[in-house]
Amino acid sequence: MSINVLAICGSLRAKSANRGLLRYAQANAPEGMKIHLADLLDVPFYNADLAEKPAAVEQLLKQLGEADALLLACPEYNYSLAPALKNALDWASREPDNHLLSGKPAAIMGAGGGMGTSRAQYHLRQVCVFLNLHPLNQPEVFANAFAGSFDTDGNVIDEKIHGLIRKQLDALLKWQQQLSR
Amino acid sequence: MSINVLAICGSLRAKSANRGLLRYAQANAPEGMKIHLADLLDVPFYNADLAEKPAAVEQLLKQLGEADALLLACPEYNYSLAPALKNALDWASREPDNHLLSGKPAAIMGAGGGMGTSRAQYHLRQVCVFLNLHPLNQPEVFANAFAGSFDTDGNVIDEKIHGLIRKQLDALLKWQQQLSR
Amino acid sequence: MSINVLAICGSLRAKSANRGLLRYAQANAPEGMKIHLADLLDVPFYNADLAEKPAAVEQLLKQLGEADALLLACPEYNYSLAPALKNALDWASREPDNHLLSGKPAAIMGAGGGMGTSRAQYHLRQVCVFLNLHPLNQPEVFANAFAGSFDTDGNVIDEKIHGLIRKQLDALLKWQQQLSR
Amino acid sequence: MSINVLAICGSLRAKSANRGLLRYAQANAPEGMKIHLADLLDVPFYNADLAEKPAAVEQLLKQLGEADALLLACPEYNYSLAPALKNALDWASREPDNHLLSGKPAAIMGAGGGMGTSRAQYHLRQVCVFLNLHPLNQPEVFANAFAGSFDTDGNVIDEKIHGLIRKQLDALLKWQQQLSR
Repeated sequence: MSINVLAICGSLRAKSANRGLLRYAQANAPEGMKIHLADLLDVPFYNADLAEKPAAVEQLLKQLGEADALLLACPEYNYSLAPALKNALDWASREPDNHLLSGKPAAIMGAGGGMGTSRAQYHLRQVCVFLNLHPLNQPEVFANAFAGSFDTDGNVIDEKIHGLIRKQLDALLKWQQQLSR
Repeated sequence: MSINVLAICGSLRAKSANRGLLRYAQANAPEGMKIHLADLLDVPFYNADLAEKPAAVEQLLKQLGEADALLLACPEYNYSLAPALKNALDWASREPDNHLLSGKPAAIMGAGGGMGTSRAQYHLRQVCVFLNLHPLNQPEVFANAFAGSFDTDGNVIDEKIHGLIRKQLDALLKWQQQLSR
Repeated sequence: MSINVLAICGSLRAKSANRGLLRYAQANAPEGMKIHLADLLDVPFYNADLAEKPAAVEQLLKQLGEADALLLACPEYNYSLAPALKNALDWASREPDNHLLSGKPAAIMGAGGGMGTSRAQYHLRQVCVFLNLHPLNQPEVFANAFAGSFDTDGNVIDEKIHGLIRKQLDALLKWQQQLSR
Repeated sequence: MSINVLAICGSLRAKSANRGLLRYAQANAPEGMKIHLADLLDVPFYNADLAEKPAAVEQLLKQLGEADALLLACPEYNYSLAPALKNALDWASREPDNHLLSGKPAAIMGAGGGMGTSRAQYHLRQVCVFLNLHPLNQPEVFANAFAGSFDTDGNVIDEKIHGLIRKQLDALLKWQQQLSR
């Protein structure tokens, strides 16, 4: 019996280091956790004028509905959030009573410059207040993407980051259990 | 001789109240200021994997290059920025030396719930630090979109908001002059 | 059997509306909750050069140690936190392993201008990340102190605010139980 | 003819690294700039119940009135501002029309953990919006206080930080001239 974690990457780039963080997480999930990756490539900007939900949005919402927890890879663009990640959450928030997100635990990680996307991650935490998501406080995962920690395909190759990701996943599993008892 | 202000609306909805703020501003620009509206409908998410810039992006960048100042209509979605607005700035920031934005003055306004998008506006101000935009401190424009201040087409019909917008445009003109002397 | 909640007011003024919020909370705590008020008047600025902890600090730390949850009345001064509230948390954070705060639930309320101290409350939430406090997401309590909702002694006299405070205390009790099971 | 810069250190500790940043700045101010250091040790918490302003507050306000620009050394405590720095600004903001601060340029620097107090600095920038201070966008000064860059007395001994401080002071001088022409 495993909990189901949906991982969402804010970068659309195939070789993004943030995507690399999630791949490592997926391959190294602790016992009792399965991680699935969402695909945002065809999710358009939320626009209330759209007559119906595109298929990629329906797929995302379905995955969110099935998730027990979220794992958010949060790039930092210009000191704030990547639009694709924010947009995915915005789409989800439009469902009745915010039932796809409300009350769920989340973990946040990010790869970027020297501060490891921390500025964007605090903006994301403010978003979680309204969405009634419960992000883990600790450990925070701030990965420097420009210090030899990633290969050219975006795979994380630094053992300290490996350890930090595993530690965060363990904490997420425990946090999910604490919140759902 | 007028300064050229590019107005960017973070909401894509045709009848958005934020778009209404910009229409009012455009029609009531002070002497010495011309306001043009950017069109974000066909601007895709920034993605480093894209082989070339779409035409809508080229158009946006051209308009930004010609602008002496920016006027940003900032909705608030889930306590942070509208992805379309953030994405427009992200595209612009990728140009060499950030020359389309660096050093330019900006004004920020927003229509939303009771707090008038203030939470999103402070996130936008943090973005401006990195982009080296110089947002006006005062007056801030926080418009409540649910208190009879807008008609069903998103036109602002409240005189206090009218006055506040005009006051902000006057301040923007003065701020642009102060920064460019 | 009741849980013990320590209430801390960021304003030092005797007739502060924020203090009034806490008095109302104290008098209307739900069954199963007792609220005590901390006294910050003689708590000095944290300074690592101080040879020993003043008595008022010792008293605060003792109360924090005994608390199952925190209730924070958060004024807004110049768009951020009241120094006295931040300073109380800073003192507490210096104890070994942050054991006085780590893992505890918290609720945040505030009385101020039209936005009800929201800007300061989001800064406080960022502080909670490091302190490993778990602030309630909802309901947020934003009280306008200048709209006839308080009497001249700082007592809250508005029934909507009364209801919101009681709703937050109920949620805090439930949140404390959820986290401690 | 020099401009007069008032430097304010958020840490009260004598050997604080943030104080060290300001000492270096003072000793290396560019031609055309004189830097004075404020003393916050006897400035109490702002409290509207205080019958009169303490002498240390009067001294601070006098220095602010004479300053053409501010230089703010911003420690980070628990992911936000040092209370002593925030409190100094709060006192100043209570003067009629905020005339001691409004419209003045400012520069922000900080020494702390690996992120160099960046989280606190963005909170300080939000404070500047309300105070109508104009903080420099660039360069930001984030100094790691735990990497051999400071001696045990808090003196900054790292040449890269030296260079960054001098670059920021040059930018502040230019920014003050741009704003006051």
